[in-house]
Amino acid sequence: MILVLSNEEIEQVFTIDECLRALEPAFLDLGNGKAGIIPRQDLLVPGPLEGSYHGFKTFSGSIPRLGVTALRINSDIVTWPIVSGVQRRVKAPLAMGSKYVGLVFLFSTRTGELLAMFPDGFIQAMRVGVTNALSAKYLSRPESSVLAVYGSGWQAKPALLAMCAVRPIKEVRVYSPKKENREGFAKEMDKKVDAKVYAVSSPELAAKGADIVALTTNSLGPFFPAEWIHDGMHITTVRFSEMNLEALLRCDLIVVAGRQQAQLLTLPGEEEKIPEFGIGDYGRDELKGTKADWRDKPELAEIMVGKRKGRENESDVTCILNFIGLGIQFAAAGARIYELAKEKGLGKEIPTEWFCQDVHP
Amino acid sequence: MILVLSNEEIEQVFTIDECLRALEPAFLDLGNGKAGIIPRQDLLVPGPLEGSYHGFKTFSGSIPRLGVTALRINSDIVTWPIVSGVQRRVKAPLAMGSKYVGLVFLFSTRTGELLAMFPDGFIQAMRVGVTNALSAKYLSRPESSVLAVYGSGWQAKPALLAMCAVRPIKEVRVYSPKKENREGFAKEMDKKVDAKVYAVSSPELAAKGADIVALTTNSLGPFFPAEWIHDGMHITTVRFSEMNLEALLRCDLIVVAGRQQAQLLTLPGEEEKIPEFGIGDYGRDELKGTKADWRDKPELAEIMVGKRKGRENESDVTCILNFIGLGIQFAAAGARIYELAKEKGLGKEIPTEWFCQDVHP
Repeated sequence: MILVLSNEEIEQVFTIDECLRALEPAFLDLGNGKAGIIPRQDLLVPGPLEGSYHGFKTFSGSIPRLGVTALRINSDIVTWPIVSGVQRRVKAPLAMGSKYVGLVFLFSTRTGELLAMFPDGFIQAMRVGVTNALSAKYLSRPESSVLAVYGSGWQAKPALLAMCAVRPIKEVRVYSPKKENREGFAKEMDKKVDAKVYAVSSPELAAKGADIVALTTNSLGPFFPAEWIHDGMHITTVRFSEMNLEALLRCDLIVVAGRQQAQLLTLPGEEEKIPEFGIGDYGRDELKGTKADWRDKPELAEIMVGKRKGRENESDVTCILNFIGLGIQFAAAGARIYELAKEKGLGKEIPTEWFCQDVHP
Repeated sequence: MILVLSNEEIEQVFTIDECLRALEPAFLDLGNGKAGIIPRQDLLVPGPLEGSYHGFKTFSGSIPRLGVTALRINSDIVTWPIVSGVQRRVKAPLAMGSKYVGLVFLFSTRTGELLAMFPDGFIQAMRVGVTNALSAKYLSRPESSVLAVYGSGWQAKPALLAMCAVRPIKEVRVYSPKKENREGFAKEMDKKVDAKVYAVSSPELAAKGADIVALTTNSLGPFFPAEWIHDGMHITTVRFSEMNLEALLRCDLIVVAGRQQAQLLTLPGEEEKIPEFGIGDYGRDELKGTKADWRDKPELAEIMVGKRKGRENESDVTCILNFIGLGIQFAAAGARIYELAKEKGLGKEIPTEWFCQDVHP
């Protein structure tokens, strides 16, 4: 039977600790040439709303050790409004009136069978936060105890929890432009971790003296300048538009989640209408040829297995540009979720037969 | 509700004529920049059998006019045995003990919703045959009446039917190495078309005087030589390993289904073990820089909309190298199948809600 799970069911079994235990060996496999990926590709065609696009995104990853290949799909109605003077990517929830569509399909490398299908939402944010926490585990100073979190949205929570799981964090400052958001978030998170979590009213204040900075915003324009960076800091991003060129040049070591850029495809003539062709995740022409050029930077997996050098000095500023998803994140998380859900009898079942055929394809 | 269909249900509603009516405008959309694709990518990792790989293949296509994006997935256990001295790609049916896994997922570009899921088997062969028939409609001589079909497998039948639908075919010669196969196939097909269909005992005989040649084999080595080609012939292939370099050079016009090659990915050190890295669908180094180099060849869609020149003389030998699948084939076929299945009340239903979420992905 094929297991169909919901975000709520996944949340019941899949904790930050489970995710860390799943993703760390998956990145080690990748670094050791024992796991593989199909890079992300996005196809954007005109959508139903004024200036909107249907964004269809796929990428995959295979971990033979776990016997799984995962495919992650997003089928979004994408818009790019200007919010508080900053351009953002916002997805319009048009499925069933007000929902989003992001899915993970888990296949067996041993039989080819489809094993499970589930929404990507819960895992999505968690694997970004956990990947960035893994970067902190391998790149930040071991005694790092002060964390600054920028953003209070869906990426902020797992980022904060995962950082507290890999480093002895005592103090967390939260900055987000809206007062009620940062304060609500800080209050909520203060109950969940041993560290003291509090909101700060200026973004500069959050970074001051912080050992680790977690940028978890959906800003398509840079907001974290070089002046806020000090020696020994480790900075994590969720898109590489968050830091400006000067800030990136301030870093002694820049690491990327994956060196391969997303391939963005659209119809002829639509290119200039899509902001992300110019900025955001897809390219930063200004970086090319500079010390901040991502194309020759080590990948996190290479650092983790020791193929490329990590932090060399206490005073080094290290940074991960986590601008690209990797299928192995969903394969590793998916395999463990599948195992846990089976153990607990969670989810709905659909006959495997519906997704098999006699025809040699 | 999400519709889940079987190959048998699709076969009930989706005829060669329906497929031609669906694919022709889809290729015109593509040629006119009104449809888009994500190119094929294959990820191969070591599989469960000696020398086998799990081959995970994805590609997508979007047709805004129809409001759909289709994703096609294959999750195969792939092997490469030598059959009668020729290396072939053979998929091992290990799903549920003896089945294959090839799937199409149909999404709405208007809401993002998953609309339908179905196996790819029935459409798979049909869209190849129909695409090649479209090449014949636009490239062969209009009075073409003699067809030669090489192969009697799952690609041969739709190829033969589709050719008879686009040209006034009176005579079909079938060649396949095994006597019982070619004779059984010819007998079966003779009942289905107005043309006289018969088997021939030598491969050379089939081509003699043929107006259109349909190569529908899974041979990874060339078997159709230049000497069998004569003026005015149109040749269709299902993989571009079927003709040798000399045969390709004999063609006045080579057209490709898509110029973009499949991207073949595997783990470090596995490359040399996978025959298709060297031959077959993925590359023919010998062609590079020759007149037969596929990289500068017109695409079928470009020919169809008149952006690139087609046949110029009666005596021209034309050829389509249909070595790459395009997502728009599955999008166009899928949209029509979805419509027909809904009309007839076919298929099983799964709640759309299971494949949506509240979480901003």
